Amino acid sequence: MGAPSGHSEGERPMRADARRNYERLVASARDVFAAEGESASMEAVARKAGVGVGTLYRHFPKRIDLVEAVYTTDVDELVDAADEAVKTLDPWTAVVAFLEAFVRYAQSKRTFLNELREAFEEHPDLKLASRERIDGATSRVIRRAQEAGVVRPDVEGGDVTQLLGPMCTSPTITREQMDRLLPLILDGLRVSAPTP
Amino acid sequence: MGAPSGHSEGERPMRADARRNYERLVASARDVFAAEGESASMEAVARKAGVGVGTLYRHFPKRIDLVEAVYTTDVDELVDAADEAVKTLDPWTAVVAFLEAFVRYAQSKRTFLNELREAFEEHPDLKLASRERIDGATSRVIRRAQEAGVVRPDVEGGDVTQLLGPMCTSPTITREQMDRLLPLILDGLRVSAPTP
Repeated sequence: MGAPSGHSEGERPMRADARRNYERLVASARDVFAAEGESASMEAVARKAGVGVGTLYRHFPKRIDLVEAVYTTDVDELVDAADEAVKTLDPWTAVVAFLEAFVRYAQSKRTFLNELREAFEEHPDLKLASRERIDGATSRVIRRAQEAGVVRPDVEGGDVTQLLGPMCTSPTITREQMDRLLPLILDGLRVSAPTP
Repeated sequence: MGAPSGHSEGERPMRADARRNYERLVASARDVFAAEGESASMEAVARKAGVGVGTLYRHFPKRIDLVEAVYTTDVDELVDAADEAVKTLDPWTAVVAFLEAFVRYAQSKRTFLNELREAFEEHPDLKLASRERIDGATSRVIRRAQEAGVVRPDVEGGDVTQLLGPMCTSPTITREQMDRLLPLILDGLRVSAPTP
């Protein structure tokens, strides 16, 4: 996925100013959704992005298009975070950094979870493709740490997302609980005595 | 809660044969729900219990009454399992036994989760009271192990249920993933070198 090419595939690439607006709108939508949740209005998003509502609707004819764009951008950033961690950090630090990025990603989904469910119902492939990309990214981080002997060998990348995802999106979990549970999960993942 | 006193409070205590039927119906309902999920019929439950449908409807006028009874019985058994573990097992073995019981409990909820949500919407106090009882039972098990120096001091009983519950009821988790994740969580909970 990476750079956005517009809300529908097969379109001509966006001009530089259109792309700038697109990116600004997605970033603004994420902030507004995070602050106001499902009650966030399209007008508020346009205002925050400093563009007219007409520009917003040209890029995102329906509210759900904007929800999907925010979600896809979040997935892109999470996958990038995994690749960046693998490239620049030692195996264990990469695991810690990626799990922290995953928690931020999953928590940001909470604010528009119901709308996202609608988007998934309309486009089941969107959910499936994102899940595969995230599980793939997680596996790269985990497998590298397993090869270095610092993560237990009996788990898979998909196990980690299956543990963290439902926990982070649970409607009843508090910020404090999350802060206590992430170190517990990291300790559970870690092999205390690295094999040489 | 403990022994059932009928489907509505303030009724006279049940006669022994009525109570036997009640218990048999709840046990049968649990089996039938587990095997057939939401498509399970009231007739199948009565048949399995070896009673007439009339007897079933006398105890449980609506299907949701039966769902609630199964749920409440499951919560009772989970709380009993915690108390039994605390009474008979060493602190760490009690944690392992209780977490295994919790996983079984949470998994059995998956088969009638949608119906249970309806019951919770009708009786929000049912969800709240059960949650408090389960968190209380978990805290007794965890705190005892913390006092013995075998569980990390920086978690609370409610953290553990908040980690396990969403994981177990997630629609996408597999049996194999659960079997890999429970040891990871136990390792994360455990203090390797007990403080004296």
